[in-house]
Amino acid sequence: MADSCASPTAPPSIGGGSLLIAWQLKDKNVLIVGGGEVASQRIESVLTADAHITLLAPAKGVHARTKELIDTYPSRITYHDRRFSGPAEIHKMDMVLTALDDVNRSREICEMCRKNKVPVNAADIPELCDFYFGAQIRDGPLQIMISTNGNGPRMAALMKKKINSALSGKEGGAIERVGVLRSQLKERAPGVGGALGRKRMKWMSEVCNIWEMDELMQLDDAFITKLLDEGWDKNCVPTLDQLKGRTTRKTSRHTQSSDSSQWLLAMGSFALGAVCTTLILLSRKR
Amino acid sequence: MADSCASPTAPPSIGGGSLLIAWQLKDKNVLIVGGGEVASQRIESVLTADAHITLLAPAKGVHARTKELIDTYPSRITYHDRRFSGPAEIHKMDMVLTALDDVNRSREICEMCRKNKVPVNAADIPELCDFYFGAQIRDGPLQIMISTNGNGPRMAALMKKKINSALSGKEGGAIERVGVLRSQLKERAPGVGGALGRKRMKWMSEVCNIWEMDELMQLDDAFITKLLDEGWDKNCVPTLDQLKGRTTRKTSRHTQSSDSSQWLLAMGSFALGAVCTTLILLSRKR
Repeated sequence: MADSCASPTAPPSIGGGSLLIAWQLKDKNVLIVGGGEVASQRIESVLTADAHITLLAPAKGVHARTKELIDTYPSRITYHDRRFSGPAEIHKMDMVLTALDDVNRSREICEMCRKNKVPVNAADIPELCDFYFGAQIRDGPLQIMISTNGNGPRMAALMKKKINSALSGKEGGAIERVGVLRSQLKERAPGVGGALGRKRMKWMSEVCNIWEMDELMQLDDAFITKLLDEGWDKNCVPTLDQLKGRTTRKTSRHTQSSDSSQWLLAMGSFALGAVCTTLILLSRKR
Repeated sequence: MADSCASPTAPPSIGGGSLLIAWQLKDKNVLIVGGGEVASQRIESVLTADAHITLLAPAKGVHARTKELIDTYPSRITYHDRRFSGPAEIHKMDMVLTALDDVNRSREICEMCRKNKVPVNAADIPELCDFYFGAQIRDGPLQIMISTNGNGPRMAALMKKKINSALSGKEGGAIERVGVLRSQLKERAPGVGGALGRKRMKWMSEVCNIWEMDELMQLDDAFITKLLDEGWDKNCVPTLDQLKGRTTRKTSRHTQSSDSSQWLLAMGSFALGAVCTTLILLSRKR
C-alpha cells in the first residue's frame, strides 16, 4: 500500500549511491602519477588485480612504502623518476590514478583521460573521479569493499573492523575449496544452462547451506571426489561426518568454550552454596 | 625475514584478485540489453547510482520485476520493445550491460564496446567482462560489496548473510550523521589541508572511536551544534552522556541480558548447593 502522505506518482527512492563493481585489470596498463603514501596504497590495490603499473614521480617525493613496492615487484612496476609530461603518457593506458598535491595538475590529467575515455581517479578530488576507492578486506578469493559514499574514511575503517571481527578467517579458504568442487562438478556433469545446469546449481547451493565454513575448508581433493561419488552421483548431500564415516556432528569450538565457562560458573556457585550452608548449620549447632 | 624455502628473488604474491571500486554514474547513460531476471537485477544496481537507463528487450521476454521497474521509474528508464540493432546504440553510452541467452550476440556487443572504449559486462560470460558484479549490501550511504572472484554466487550470498547478521542496521544512519557532523565542522573551521586539516581529521577520528554506532545515530542537528561547542571549540571529545548532562554511561542491552542470565545461573546453583548440603547434614543428624 502506498503511504497516504506521499505523492501517488513519486517512485520509491533508491538512488544516491555508487555502482560497486570488481574491475578486471589482469595484464592491463595502469598509470599512477605521484609517489606519496596514497600512491603506495593505490599500487597495492592495483597489484591485487595483476595489472602492469607505470609510476611517474620525482624520486625526492617517493614514500618509503612506494619505494619498497617498486623494489619488490620490478616485473610489475615500471618506475620513472620524473613528473607527468603530457597527453602521450595516457595513450596506451587502461586506467589512470593521480595522487598529487597539485589539484590543477590532477584536473588537467583527468580532463585528458576523459577526452580519451580512460577511467580515472584523482585522490581527494571526488568531483574529478570516474570511480572511488573504499576500505577493502581480502582473504584469498574473497574480497569485500566498504564504501561510505564520501562520508569519511574513518567510518569505512570502523565498518571494516566490525566486519573483520565477524569473519573467522576461514571464509577465503572455504570459498577456494567450493570453487574447486564447482569446477570438478562441471567436469563430471558438463554443459551450459538447461535442466542439468539448474540441477548442478541446486546441488551446489545445498552443499553450501548444509556444510559449515570450517567444514568446507576441509574439502581436499580426496573428499571432493568422495562428495561427488556419494552425493552428486546418488542425488543427495551427505554431511562431512557422513563422508568421514561418523554419525554424530561435532560441537563447534565456540559452543564448547561457552558451555565450559557456564559449567564452571554453576560448579563454583554450587560449591559456594554448600560451603555457606555448612558454615551456617555448624554455627547454629554450637 | 624471507622464508628460507622460497626463492630469494620471488616477490610475495598479492595478485589473483580484482580492483574493487565504487563507479560513479550520476546522470550517465547506461544501456541494458535483455529484459529477463538478471536484467532486472542490473537495473536495480544501476538505479542505485542515479544513471539514465536505456533498456532494449522484446516485450515477450520481459520479466515481471523488469516490467515493474520500467513502470515505477519512467523518468530513469527508457524502454524500447526491440532487439539490439547495431553499433549506433552504444555511441552515447557510458556503460553497457548485456543479459542475454545468446552468447554470440553478447560477444558482438562486447567487441563493439571495447572498440569504442565503453565499459561492458556480459552476464554469465566472465571472459568478456571489463568488470563483475557481486553480492551487495546497502544501508543509506553505506554500501558493501562481496566478491568471490568467480568462485560462485552461492558463497557470496552466504557471506552477505554472515556480514548482514554482524550489522545492527544502525550503521547507515550513523554514517549519515557523521557526514553531517563532518561538513558542519568544515564550515566552522574551513580550509583544505595543513595543520587545521590534520586537527579536524584527528578530532573526527576520536569522535568515531569514542562514540558507539547507536550513539552516533542520535547526533541530530542540536547535538551536533552542542558537540562542536563543547568539544571542538574546547579541544576535547565529550561523550554523549556528558553532552546530555549525565555522568554514567548506560550498559548496552546485550551485556545486560547476558549478565542477568549468568546471575540467574549462579543464584540457582548457589541455592541448589545450599539445599543439597542441608539435606546431607540433616540426614547425618538423624
